[in-house]
Amino acid sequence: MPRDLLTIGFDADDTLWHNETIFERVHERFRALLARYHDTATVDRTLFATEMRNLELYGYGVKAFMLSSIETAIALSGGQISAAEIQQVLDLGREMLEHPVELLDGVAETVALLAPRHRVLLITKGDLRDQERKLEKSGLAAHFSAVEIVSEKNEATYAAILRRHAIEPRRFLMAGNSLKSDIQPVLALGGLGAYIPYHLTWAAERVDQVPDAPGRFFTLTSVRELAPLVEGWDG
Amino acid sequence: MPRDLLTIGFDADDTLWHNETIFERVHERFRALLARYHDTATVDRTLFATEMRNLELYGYGVKAFMLSSIETAIALSGGQISAAEIQQVLDLGREMLEHPVELLDGVAETVALLAPRHRVLLITKGDLRDQERKLEKSGLAAHFSAVEIVSEKNEATYAAILRRHAIEPRRFLMAGNSLKSDIQPVLALGGLGAYIPYHLTWAAERVDQVPDAPGRFFTLTSVRELAPLVEGWDG
Repeated sequence: MPRDLLTIGFDADDTLWHNETIFERVHERFRALLARYHDTATVDRTLFATEMRNLELYGYGVKAFMLSSIETAIALSGGQISAAEIQQVLDLGREMLEHPVELLDGVAETVALLAPRHRVLLITKGDLRDQERKLEKSGLAAHFSAVEIVSEKNEATYAAILRRHAIEPRRFLMAGNSLKSDIQPVLALGGLGAYIPYHLTWAAERVDQVPDAPGRFFTLTSVRELAPLVEGWDG
Repeated sequence: MPRDLLTIGFDADDTLWHNETIFERVHERFRALLARYHDTATVDRTLFATEMRNLELYGYGVKAFMLSSIETAIALSGGQISAAEIQQVLDLGREMLEHPVELLDGVAETVALLAPRHRVLLITKGDLRDQERKLEKSGLAAHFSAVEIVSEKNEATYAAILRRHAIEPRRFLMAGNSLKSDIQPVLALGGLGAYIPYHLTWAAERVDQVPDAPGRFFTLTSVRELAPLVEGWDG
């Protein structure tokens, strides 16, 4: 099979650009805001539980995070949190949305190397406008033949995307930092997965099991290993 | 030209199902919440100004509305608004997201009539997950050959959608309640527009000028007039 028939899907947050590090810095400031009411572990646990309870309703992204943070602050302070402190949560969210996009090491070169020889897609979940803005800021937009911003990354989502673009699953490789959202559903459909762990993983994306799919699942230590993998792949 | 080559795009909010009526009821309760600080006109004006200032950052949809409402409540109360009252704003947003989908009169029959004979698309802006959920609840999903949830409905967006689906602009008719978002950009591309006004229009969607595009622009009093218009159209 000609190698250039491989289509490559890229996840965005923590695969192309830093994201969880920004959330982590905001978490720290949120913990500080609530420090006089509760310890760090309680704040983290309650915020995460609130986010998970609201996930079906709010979806992913910064706005959902802001709303769950405000709800958590009201609950954990027993209604004592001040309007000025809630304004600080709004300001934290605004900072996140306005944050510069910082590409991970090796991303610009890898995408530029692969895009002329392969069909390259961006497949991400989150706020529609926020992801579009980050892609715009990243300088990478022109490399992608299509951008799919979806509300959830599961088997049904990937199956619909592959159908829409007339891509055979066995000729599709998804590269990303989440086993749950980027790798497992694609392997289940018969595709290939290149897992590139980021040094932080949001609790909602953590899974215990590493996939067992010899010849179709690859763990890379850097995105720089992706182009050699793709070029060496012979279907 | 065979009539069945016409592709029909439907807007969603206030074209297929009621939306602005739900926002209006929430606005009333928001005004009541702030009544001891400011009069109705000031609350409305400030909320709208806040929404417009945040539009680029937050985009459209209920979550953006919730965040702008909280910001407005903090500002208009001079920081005096209580956590319990901010929780009420969060509750209002939750109600909006959980609200049942109520189709406009004639929608179910019209979509069911057109879908077997024409390619029918849904083109809407707003929160990704909220719009997907509303489409799911509407019972109409199976009729649409594609669903496009976008962050803004302008000429560039429509041009990209028409290109992606290989639709000639002159064979594309967009039906919706917003001259600004549904009609003007499509007419500018050489397409057709069926304007179906809703009894309420959000200030951000209001335009003064009615388009001048004879033979390509139609104002309907009900979606029930759409199928006869399409069937009578002879390109």
